[in-house]
Amino acid sequence: MSATAELKSSGLEGVSAGKSAVCCVDQGTLLYRGYEIADLAKNATFEEVAYLLLVGEKPNATQLANFKKSLLAHREIPDDVVDILRQTATQPNAHPMDVLRTCISYMAHFDPDCQSIDPEAELRKSTRLTAQIPTIIGHMQNIIDGRDIVKPDPSLDHAANLLYMMTGRKPSAEEARIIDVSLILYAEHDFNASTFTGRVIAGTLSDLHGAVAGAVAALKGPLHGGANEAAMEMLKEIDQFIAKGGTVDDFMTRAFAEKRKLMGFGHRVYKNGDHRAGILNALGRAYAEKKGPDAVKWFDIGDKVQKIMLDQKNIFPNVDFPCGMTYFTLGIPVPQYTPIFVAARITGWAAHIMEQHQNNRLIRPLAEYTGPAQRKWNA
Amino acid sequence: MSATAELKSSGLEGVSAGKSAVCCVDQGTLLYRGYEIADLAKNATFEEVAYLLLVGEKPNATQLANFKKSLLAHREIPDDVVDILRQTATQPNAHPMDVLRTCISYMAHFDPDCQSIDPEAELRKSTRLTAQIPTIIGHMQNIIDGRDIVKPDPSLDHAANLLYMMTGRKPSAEEARIIDVSLILYAEHDFNASTFTGRVIAGTLSDLHGAVAGAVAALKGPLHGGANEAAMEMLKEIDQFIAKGGTVDDFMTRAFAEKRKLMGFGHRVYKNGDHRAGILNALGRAYAEKKGPDAVKWFDIGDKVQKIMLDQKNIFPNVDFPCGMTYFTLGIPVPQYTPIFVAARITGWAAHIMEQHQNNRLIRPLAEYTGPAQRKWNA
Repeated sequence: MSATAELKSSGLEGVSAGKSAVCCVDQGTLLYRGYEIADLAKNATFEEVAYLLLVGEKPNATQLANFKKSLLAHREIPDDVVDILRQTATQPNAHPMDVLRTCISYMAHFDPDCQSIDPEAELRKSTRLTAQIPTIIGHMQNIIDGRDIVKPDPSLDHAANLLYMMTGRKPSAEEARIIDVSLILYAEHDFNASTFTGRVIAGTLSDLHGAVAGAVAALKGPLHGGANEAAMEMLKEIDQFIAKGGTVDDFMTRAFAEKRKLMGFGHRVYKNGDHRAGILNALGRAYAEKKGPDAVKWFDIGDKVQKIMLDQKNIFPNVDFPCGMTYFTLGIPVPQYTPIFVAARITGWAAHIMEQHQNNRLIRPLAEYTGPAQRKWNA
Repeated sequence: MSATAELKSSGLEGVSAGKSAVCCVDQGTLLYRGYEIADLAKNATFEEVAYLLLVGEKPNATQLANFKKSLLAHREIPDDVVDILRQTATQPNAHPMDVLRTCISYMAHFDPDCQSIDPEAELRKSTRLTAQIPTIIGHMQNIIDGRDIVKPDPSLDHAANLLYMMTGRKPSAEEARIIDVSLILYAEHDFNASTFTGRVIAGTLSDLHGAVAGAVAALKGPLHGGANEAAMEMLKEIDQFIAKGGTVDDFMTRAFAEKRKLMGFGHRVYKNGDHRAGILNALGRAYAEKKGPDAVKWFDIGDKVQKIMLDQKNIFPNVDFPCGMTYFTLGIPVPQYTPIFVAARITGWAAHIMEQHQNNRLIRPLAEYTGPAQRKWNA
């Protein structure tokens, strides 16, 4: 191909794909509808942040009470969805993200607002999905673990109830707060690959459930949401390596020599560090210190890995790196880390899908053709 | 927002999102891997075009025979998928594209290659999905119509078998050729919204079934694949309007006055007409003329609508416009037009997903923030 046809950037890096009032991501700051992420992590709850993202403004006391009531009212999932979970979750090839994708796709058929892109219908659907997704995840884990289904507990807030349904154990106030903050941190991040997927789907004026199913598929990938699982798996590998007499330095030297891609590091947008990583690392480490040396170990290994990456490659961790260690310390099974990411990001996805529908233009880029010149079929 | 932050193009119009050797779309030509669309429509079969797209080259006789054997071997779908069809297809809210999306998502759990992005595994999965999708569509329609399931007929080629399974009636040679050509025309179109969705999903290194499920969701939208159904619904509306004493001219004048969006016209890329529209219009009209005045009527109305659009708005029909009339004349239920589009486009999607995986870069654009300036949560 000719030099002029050369792509200026691949993967749309640095290219604006549209306007959005939902989130501002830049080197200096991360804002959800104007509120800085550290401010939200310190002062807001996930329910408040979900409302903020979906509706556009911070809720007042009445609005928040009504929103929480609506979330509580929709936590249960139909028996048919539990049947699908039983059929799929324990298949040898099943990935929890695939199971979640199938359940979300399936639930569309039973949603009375399924085909509507009216703003009020979409807000109802978004609220329902936000309420239902933790229950799908919890029930899926119950089935995988072979225990009885743990029904949602209306006395627990959104994040605490998620942790409870997965494990059957009521979390402490500190555990509830850590998972709540992790959901706040994961709730939104402008045109990341899964949100962008949702917007491309919504841009054809397709429906919200379909756009969310596509976003789940995108988030599954190890270059996106799957990174928190991959980061924890790497820490486990390092732990094994240490048990055999190696050091973190040795492991990293070998990884660099093998040009191995290390998950949980670097970010397409952030070049000077991810605002969210430090917040979760501090919470996770403080909790691990109370649990004891077996828990602190992961953060110690993690600190060494982060220092080596920064010193030798000038690459900062992203939020997925401390997330892996923190969820592990909370006792969450590794394959559910990305589904929990969905339980948070559903709010950001829905906000973007609604924004796309309310001011729509089809998203349809061009391709640069690099294939064969014209030729005849019957040559 | 400031003037400098103004978007140069919205919806990524005119923006290159990457390189591809699959298809060349420009004002003058439409090539699948170098072969011009009219040449393929005249000289190739859908099976040959599917192989061309998936593998990259025209098959020789042995390659084609093996590929057809492989398609034949995978036409049956598991009983569990038929159960899902029975549970969903007749729900009052169910859209056939949603049902198809759920089935494709569900089938992933039972595909032995599901989690692999190895090229050979992806080719096997692509071939299986190409074989299975017509069966899902056919069985779905059987269930909707309340008739017994029509099993695939191994004596029929891919397109003819699709029509047979949907209707229970063996198509004539002409009917088989029309549906075959329509599948060829629909098989591929570079970075259209659904294919681009599949590539964004694949770009996180997520799997093929998830990328296809997302692409199905995107194709459903009335601004994309749903246009063939919307075009036919408009023709029916005009027919009703005529029955009440109106004319096509009156209808169009009113539609223009109401600034109504007319489906099946215009195209993001083609400004001087869609190469595919004329091919299908000619085949459909010739067939309708043999069927008689009740069939020709639609093409007569369609011709008038096309002439008015061109004379008064300088907008050409796209392939969805003649497709609607042609599928209607073939006796295909309108809600299945877009699923049939999937039965063709699965080959293009799969070719792009494989191409993305084989030379991957995460697709992650930027957003231009238009929301509130930074503010304090507890102000």
